[in-house]
Amino acid sequence: MRGVIFMTSINQKNEPLLAYLNNTVKYEDHKVVLLNRRLYPEETKYVTCSSHYEVAVAIEEMTIQGAIVIAIAAGYGFGLAFEQKPELSGDALKTYAQEVYDRLMSTRPTGQRLKVILDKCMTEVNTGIANEKKGAELARNLTSLMNQEVEDADNIAIACGKNTANLLEDGDKVLTHCFADSALIHMLLEAKRQNKEIEMYCTETRPYFQGARLTAHSIKETGTKVTLVTDNMPGFLMEQGMVTKLVTAADKITLDGHVCNKIGTYQYAVVAQYHNIPFYVLGYEGPDENSPNTDQIEIEYRNAEEVFYARGVRTAVEGINGLYPSFDIVTPNFVDAIVTDKGVFAARDISQHLK
Amino acid sequence: MRGVIFMTSINQKNEPLLAYLNNTVKYEDHKVVLLNRRLYPEETKYVTCSSHYEVAVAIEEMTIQGAIVIAIAAGYGFGLAFEQKPELSGDALKTYAQEVYDRLMSTRPTGQRLKVILDKCMTEVNTGIANEKKGAELARNLTSLMNQEVEDADNIAIACGKNTANLLEDGDKVLTHCFADSALIHMLLEAKRQNKEIEMYCTETRPYFQGARLTAHSIKETGTKVTLVTDNMPGFLMEQGMVTKLVTAADKITLDGHVCNKIGTYQYAVVAQYHNIPFYVLGYEGPDENSPNTDQIEIEYRNAEEVFYARGVRTAVEGINGLYPSFDIVTPNFVDAIVTDKGVFAARDISQHLK
Repeated sequence: MRGVIFMTSINQKNEPLLAYLNNTVKYEDHKVVLLNRRLYPEETKYVTCSSHYEVAVAIEEMTIQGAIVIAIAAGYGFGLAFEQKPELSGDALKTYAQEVYDRLMSTRPTGQRLKVILDKCMTEVNTGIANEKKGAELARNLTSLMNQEVEDADNIAIACGKNTANLLEDGDKVLTHCFADSALIHMLLEAKRQNKEIEMYCTETRPYFQGARLTAHSIKETGTKVTLVTDNMPGFLMEQGMVTKLVTAADKITLDGHVCNKIGTYQYAVVAQYHNIPFYVLGYEGPDENSPNTDQIEIEYRNAEEVFYARGVRTAVEGINGLYPSFDIVTPNFVDAIVTDKGVFAARDISQHLK
Repeated sequence: MRGVIFMTSINQKNEPLLAYLNNTVKYEDHKVVLLNRRLYPEETKYVTCSSHYEVAVAIEEMTIQGAIVIAIAAGYGFGLAFEQKPELSGDALKTYAQEVYDRLMSTRPTGQRLKVILDKCMTEVNTGIANEKKGAELARNLTSLMNQEVEDADNIAIACGKNTANLLEDGDKVLTHCFADSALIHMLLEAKRQNKEIEMYCTETRPYFQGARLTAHSIKETGTKVTLVTDNMPGFLMEQGMVTKLVTAADKITLDGHVCNKIGTYQYAVVAQYHNIPFYVLGYEGPDENSPNTDQIEIEYRNAEEVFYARGVRTAVEGINGLYPSFDIVTPNFVDAIVTDKGVFAARDISQHLK
């Protein structure tokens, strides 16, 4: 990859790597340091970016993945761009800021979180320029802003995980689907602190295998027993009494309590309800204020070719059609609780989180 | 492979290859000719076995798969063994018959269908010996017996498929799981004859991908539109109204109407019922007379390692547990009809098939 070199792990503590954001993205020694998600978890290697251009390339080449991760990386890249023009000020600084913003935003034009973070950065920059600050100071401000974003995001995940752990009982066998990210890890760490013995089942999550890789690996790192199954097995596990709870994250939660998550969540939620197995959603920082209901959600159909492959190997015959809806939507009646950093909510009451 | 050579296709007609048994297994020119299932459907190649030993090896090395296919192949191998000892008679013939039986039975000691067919052969042989027949005549009798078995099995699949086609409506979008074998093909061929336009969705069926390979390929051969999805997508398809019927085969049907089939069938049946989507089972020749209820069914757990791989490629991280229950059991309340060669039965009345 252009302009990107390898360095050793930045994870010094004996903790699940994905439990904290700055094990994935960090500003260090005038570089943006990123966990290489194309290699992880098989290999834990980092790439360092020496300019905002290199950060942009890392996002474009999928070296980093995940809405929050790319947004934070772009924000740090924004700061780095100013650090390299410490004396710039006034209109020249304004023009430069727009160039940097455009380059970083162009990496993922529809990235909602990316835009939120870059807009925050731009507001900070404009305020600084209005107050006659130079590049060097803006760089420090942007880095501080991102450090705060990382801290906030981690605290939200920790609180969400802890609140969910409180709902678990000693001996629970929890099924999860896809990768519910750091709140799932904190849920398990908190359960351990509470001396609740939890066992996990995770689905492999076709076609991308997030479950077989990120989820299984992260659960293993918490010291929790984890068993992998394929995506056609959860119904059997529920019918046999082998799982007692279903816990997933959500890609989006509407104000009226619909949960949009990785394809497959819907069918597991339906079967869970048939077997009276509670379904808890890790809601992190709550519902999307801009989504009163599902009218605002369009199910994204990804490239159907992906259904024909498993980690690059052709698994299907040629000359057929494929379909890859990437998300499905679970109606509130199938959700026993949405748990956010602020507490436990009935799905239909999730808008209370914003009060 | 020892003692096995390649030959060109025996499928002369322009028909789906797996619609008829003797496209998979055939006795021809003093050889047992077998479709190589380790290559099919990517390649359509046949292996020829010149002795019952070679047939046994072909079964052991998984060159052929499927309960009926290996049973018929073994039966033809039994005949071949006698053809090669045309003058043998009396006690020597009896001793030889037992040796042949034992060798063929040893390929799959728990193969229920294999044992049924080999026992039929042995009865034929014993009757022949009692009537002072020699090897040559026994060989002819065994080959005739197998030809009849093939014809009967094909007719059962055709009748079962036709009876199911009668339940379909023009415009139906049918979801199927795993490979329902030739009755599914005949269902689609019959639907075409009835001018019913049917569209098919098939699951890839992890971990072995029977759906992505055998099912998708066989449906394509019938000229029916087929769309492949992963095993976590059927619930979404049902919720979106994209499928109108669920049709699978059964590995075993109990006399009280429980359907044991490929893992995943259960969860699809539960979600189908929630959406009022009829679930029809291709029951072929009906329930297992020796299984009054599910007490006789033990769910087979296959090697969990298989869950970690996709067509030989590692898809999961190391150091975790896996689980591979190969079947699940659908209770009669989720089954709208079991269709056999004799007609359409309510699941709870399936024992009527035997009357």
